[in-house]
Amino acid sequence: MSSTDPTSAARTPRLEQAITNPGSVKINVKGAFIVDDDPRSKSPVRTDGVHYEGQDIRLPHHTGVVSHVAVDIGGSLAKLVYFTRELDSPDNGGRLNFINFETDRIHLCLEFIKQLKEEHQGLNGGSKDELCVVATGGGAYKYYDKLKETLNVDIMREDEMECLITGLDFFITEIPNEIFTYSETEPMQFAEARPDVYPYLLVNIGSGVSMIKVSGPKQFQRVGGTHLGGGTFWGIMSLLTGAKTFDDMLAMADRGDNSGVDMLVGDIYGMDYGKIGLKSTAIASTFGKVFRLQNEHANDDDALHDGTNHTTGEVLFQHEDMSRSLLYAISNNIGQIAYLQSEKHQVKHIYFGGSFIRGHRQTMNTLSYAIRFWSKGEKQAYFLRHEGYIGSVGAFLRRKPVNWGRRNSVDEHILSNGL
Amino acid sequence: MSSTDPTSAARTPRLEQAITNPGSVKINVKGAFIVDDDPRSKSPVRTDGVHYEGQDIRLPHHTGVVSHVAVDIGGSLAKLVYFTRELDSPDNGGRLNFINFETDRIHLCLEFIKQLKEEHQGLNGGSKDELCVVATGGGAYKYYDKLKETLNVDIMREDEMECLITGLDFFITEIPNEIFTYSETEPMQFAEARPDVYPYLLVNIGSGVSMIKVSGPKQFQRVGGTHLGGGTFWGIMSLLTGAKTFDDMLAMADRGDNSGVDMLVGDIYGMDYGKIGLKSTAIASTFGKVFRLQNEHANDDDALHDGTNHTTGEVLFQHEDMSRSLLYAISNNIGQIAYLQSEKHQVKHIYFGGSFIRGHRQTMNTLSYAIRFWSKGEKQAYFLRHEGYIGSVGAFLRRKPVNWGRRNSVDEHILSNGL
Repeated sequence: MSSTDPTSAARTPRLEQAITNPGSVKINVKGAFIVDDDPRSKSPVRTDGVHYEGQDIRLPHHTGVVSHVAVDIGGSLAKLVYFTRELDSPDNGGRLNFINFETDRIHLCLEFIKQLKEEHQGLNGGSKDELCVVATGGGAYKYYDKLKETLNVDIMREDEMECLITGLDFFITEIPNEIFTYSETEPMQFAEARPDVYPYLLVNIGSGVSMIKVSGPKQFQRVGGTHLGGGTFWGIMSLLTGAKTFDDMLAMADRGDNSGVDMLVGDIYGMDYGKIGLKSTAIASTFGKVFRLQNEHANDDDALHDGTNHTTGEVLFQHEDMSRSLLYAISNNIGQIAYLQSEKHQVKHIYFGGSFIRGHRQTMNTLSYAIRFWSKGEKQAYFLRHEGYIGSVGAFLRRKPVNWGRRNSVDEHILSNGL
Repeated sequence: MSSTDPTSAARTPRLEQAITNPGSVKINVKGAFIVDDDPRSKSPVRTDGVHYEGQDIRLPHHTGVVSHVAVDIGGSLAKLVYFTRELDSPDNGGRLNFINFETDRIHLCLEFIKQLKEEHQGLNGGSKDELCVVATGGGAYKYYDKLKETLNVDIMREDEMECLITGLDFFITEIPNEIFTYSETEPMQFAEARPDVYPYLLVNIGSGVSMIKVSGPKQFQRVGGTHLGGGTFWGIMSLLTGAKTFDDMLAMADRGDNSGVDMLVGDIYGMDYGKIGLKSTAIASTFGKVFRLQNEHANDDDALHDGTNHTTGEVLFQHEDMSRSLLYAISNNIGQIAYLQSEKHQVKHIYFGGSFIRGHRQTMNTLSYAIRFWSKGEKQAYFLRHEGYIGSVGAFLRRKPVNWGRRNSVDEHILSNGL
């Protein structure tokens, strides 16, 4: 959840005094940590397309002014990051806040930023024009005029891929307890800092999926991706089940059994296909059981189309089973392609980000398992607690830290923005 | 279409005289060719789950007896191959006939084989027990008892992967005008014979997808696959559209426009994402437009679940568009994974087989384009006219030709079965 709701006087955000050029802001990330015990993170979701995140990041040593917010506007979600000062905290400093909006309801996002801008003025006595918005993602282009007109502020646009790697580098190197590995027995095992950060593969799963090989600071290449991503799950599930939110779909997946719709090796063989190591429980074909069962039950001309026999009311396929099947299929497919790309580009570490993951266990387990399975345990999947905000944090920071590599200096914690 | 329909006296199949052990049959494939001008191939599809293929293969020099049929029983389809003698042809010989059945209606397949058996006896005056069935695919195991009991014949089981590569080797090396490449400008460009057949990658697309690296005769390894295959397309489409046959779904795809449901780069950016070479028309997310549009139209609590506003009757998403989108997505995904596997395993030639392809232009175009795109024109997709029968032909031949490599001898055309 965001630490502040600008529509609530009790939770007024306290933005730092503005300075005219946000390009020269430096963020002091020394001692940064994730605020885990925020009681407000108990109710992170609203139902109107706005999603407050828990897990704000405290920046106890940052005392400078921050006069910008950053937003990463993707195909489905607009992810916003903004800074608030913690005037009532003993060590002062401030925090980064995270909130997202359905792109579809971009007006809610704009209202939110407008509110931040109003309070920015009220708090700092400056001009409203002093707040600047750093925008990335496709929406930075598509909604550029709208942003500019509605907010009447400067809009700085940053490249999506550059923001992603800036953001991920920041999370990897600066935020403790941010990166973790996942397995059923050890759901969240925090990764230790590595001296050899590069190269790595970033797999960002939003509506679609981008895979970016990062060879060093500012050295990157989008090596591939797939259009079978979060938007596919969301779209097909909404058609099949009528579910209205992504969280509802995930909750259904938790309760489902994919073997209700998937064709397993056992459905074809009646046993293991041992010769090539395929167990009878392995999935042979996602949704592969559907056509056959529909056929069996809809002899002639029964009106059995959507998995429900309209005459008898019999439900052949549970929404929960469909949800689990499709979530597994999409996650596993991304995992396999990510592994194969990591092989082709000789990368060992694979980071999965993007709002599709949403900290969901089944998703992380599938991705993690796929990487372990295909690499025979040689490679590992890494996740982030702020997986959906990599791009917007990158946009917030705008550039790679100039102090990259100077690990022994206090300066290492100063991320230069715009220098 | 099959050259014979055993239920019709006018088209009685003329099976060769049986010999007791089909393992010693040799098929003389000298001068084999595909029968293209068969007038019966004009009506290849029946509506009861039986699909007669055109394109029988004539074996003008085979005069021996053939006392077996071969069937490859997969998750969705059972593919049958049988031999008939051409007594009324000037050069005698015979032909291979191809027919498939929905696995779901395996009884139709068994009836057909039973009929072949009856006629086998009638024609040859032998015992019914002289007909042998070579079975492969998962159904060879799952339906073993059923096959044995219903047909009361010997059932020989052969490994699915071995049959696939035996069959493909046969098609590549023995059948002229079988293998082709596909592009929109040159829809069917027959491949020339190559002295260096190995290594190659076989991508067999049935309900699920298997990818097999073949390094030489009998040297192969299943390197991967994906469970997003024909069964996935079939299953999701039957739920979303109520279509009852695969051909109906393909026909819908022909008429559809995927941008009705897919989120394109232009939908996110409002323009090209030129920096990384993504055009505005590129697909960012399969079905990615659905959730957003459903949301827009189903403000509060409209009963808008399956893409139809039940109150107003408005149809937001055309079945044709969904079909085209999903067909593209699945084909393209298989193409990408096949390319990446071919890179990992250092293979240049990629053959696509399996009943999913069905000679459908959009499918072949997508697979072909994917290989060209990802390999930057270095690699090519190959297709087969008998793409669905690779495994059953392999089962029919049962083994790799023993004469492999002796290209200068007349014997090269004798495929030894069981030696």
